[in-house]
Amino acid sequence: MITVKVELGARSYPILIGLGLLADKNLLSSVIPGKQVMVVTNEVVAPLYEKFLRTGLTNRDYRVVTLADGEQYKTLVSFERIMTALLEARYERSATIVALGGGVVGDIAGFAAASYQRGIKFIQIPTTLLAQVDSSVGGKTAVNHPLGKNMIGAFYQPQAVIADLGTLETLPDRELKAGLAEVIKYGLLGDRVFLDWIEANLDALVARDSTTLIYAIERSCRVKAAIVMADENESGQRALLNLGHTFGHAIEHALGYGVWLHGEAVAAGMCMAARLSCRLKLITHADCARVIHLITRAGLPSAPPVEVSAEALLEAMRVDKKNKDGQIRLVLFDALGATRLHDDYATSALYAVLHGEQCGVTA
Amino acid sequence: MITVKVELGARSYPILIGLGLLADKNLLSSVIPGKQVMVVTNEVVAPLYEKFLRTGLTNRDYRVVTLADGEQYKTLVSFERIMTALLEARYERSATIVALGGGVVGDIAGFAAASYQRGIKFIQIPTTLLAQVDSSVGGKTAVNHPLGKNMIGAFYQPQAVIADLGTLETLPDRELKAGLAEVIKYGLLGDRVFLDWIEANLDALVARDSTTLIYAIERSCRVKAAIVMADENESGQRALLNLGHTFGHAIEHALGYGVWLHGEAVAAGMCMAARLSCRLKLITHADCARVIHLITRAGLPSAPPVEVSAEALLEAMRVDKKNKDGQIRLVLFDALGATRLHDDYATSALYAVLHGEQCGVTA
Repeated sequence: MITVKVELGARSYPILIGLGLLADKNLLSSVIPGKQVMVVTNEVVAPLYEKFLRTGLTNRDYRVVTLADGEQYKTLVSFERIMTALLEARYERSATIVALGGGVVGDIAGFAAASYQRGIKFIQIPTTLLAQVDSSVGGKTAVNHPLGKNMIGAFYQPQAVIADLGTLETLPDRELKAGLAEVIKYGLLGDRVFLDWIEANLDALVARDSTTLIYAIERSCRVKAAIVMADENESGQRALLNLGHTFGHAIEHALGYGVWLHGEAVAAGMCMAARLSCRLKLITHADCARVIHLITRAGLPSAPPVEVSAEALLEAMRVDKKNKDGQIRLVLFDALGATRLHDDYATSALYAVLHGEQCGVTA
Repeated sequence: MITVKVELGARSYPILIGLGLLADKNLLSSVIPGKQVMVVTNEVVAPLYEKFLRTGLTNRDYRVVTLADGEQYKTLVSFERIMTALLEARYERSATIVALGGGVVGDIAGFAAASYQRGIKFIQIPTTLLAQVDSSVGGKTAVNHPLGKNMIGAFYQPQAVIADLGTLETLPDRELKAGLAEVIKYGLLGDRVFLDWIEANLDALVARDSTTLIYAIERSCRVKAAIVMADENESGQRALLNLGHTFGHAIEHALGYGVWLHGEAVAAGMCMAARLSCRLKLITHADCARVIHLITRAGLPSAPPVEVSAEALLEAMRVDKKNKDGQIRLVLFDALGATRLHDDYATSALYAVLHGEQCGVTA
């Protein structure tokens, strides 16, 4: 088992990464605190992995809330369901919420933990690659509003994250690939050695080789943890983690949540960021092609869906937490491995990318 | 103008107390940050005081959400209305929410500020005595759930609190008295000199003498600020602020929110805490009588409403954030001016108090 420590003073916590962790009763029992435990999961994950928690956490007051599966259920309604379950069970401020599932479950459950009685303990057990490398690290919790994604939430750190590689065995191929989009993001963000490693090991990752996946998860968590430790509440550097996300969120919003997976939208978004950077002559055609090629090799989309218009994307991009004084701020490449928040780009170049105009680079 | 500084490190903020502060455009303009301002108020307060903000905050993007008046509207539905208004106006993370109203408005608006885009700036302008002495100090924000009061919320500090005594001129007598309940609480909590002062000045307070009210507000805020500074997230000492509140919340919950005012319920609750303390021989009959006499003089109820049964109160008390391992923890008197969280009392004594059995003391 590998441990990545996220150092945030009184809010520090460990990320435990390994194979078969959920079957380790001693581990579960020591890592999950509290007499009252509320597991928040979804209808797909529950039949597969909830039993490990149930049998691993004996002598607890143990309950489960099972949500429907999908981003479209990441709403205040689901949030309220968890609150009702906690209150019906008369759970106290010493209770613990355990998120068992992907990013959607983690985000809702985390916001519920942040808000129930103004904050109770929270454990993340991410069961998708995307959640293991991304959403379980950094304390961002949220639900969606019909007018914008992740608009209602809190910064709230878990007590611990348990990333069991075993849970990836049942993950559909499409979701595994969506997770690889975020792994690739960490390579593109600021670590060219890791980027080279991903290119060299992509086939093993797609083939779900455990050792290769464990390394990818550890390295991704370390990159993200370093950024979060430097800027917990996203006042500066942390915004870089949004590479591809402004475009990606716009795609998800314009298509309707749940049509494309988050990772797929981010993959296309990173290609759009590369194309815009290329068009603005921040990076070379060769670098742009390298991004698009890697994402295509991972089986991920490199452009927005044809059924979504440039105007719909632009409209959705206007509602983004990074925006300032009405200006859409974008994470762009200064070079591969060097990203920066831009608000001084030529709007015409953005429109060209949204309209799908090629910068001369195809996959 | 008197300034009470609440020292909480990076989350420190001032409480400004005085007469006519809302008419001071320079003050409003310098204290309220941000280009985008969303005022959250209610239908009673808006026609009286919202114009001061509108004319005082020129050159801002200025909008208002007006909620219905009353504790029964302190819900996730009202919370979501504010979120929708912020998103429809495309307000960004640099926006500011201004709460203009009593404790209900402050609690909902504060939770909205804590949650919108994971946290935006927040200013409190309390317009009731209760909110000025209590709910605007300490960073507790929340909405109610049908199964429990203040069960969904956050600890979130404002940037500043503006307590304008002028807003009390339009306050109904009943609400002024409800506010006095919290002032009396600060006397009973830990400051016998202040308790003596309240007893000596109660008539001037009821007659709304500005100078006397300003002193009562300042002193109350200082007592509360000292307790909050020592225990921001209510892990210990801060629970003392709940004197009378476990009983009070149960009364509100059992009657239905909005039938009794919060301060009325707390007043009766403090008398019940005194009676239980007396019955447990923690305080003398004379001290118990002193509490009940003071509360009765202020025109406040000294017992729960007759239409609520002891069983209904007990049921409601079982859902309280202070409870631990199913035990109802109560703030009781060790002496007047000395309170402590108790969980070792005789249950029969609690039942006797809930059943309205006299401890030999009447008002």
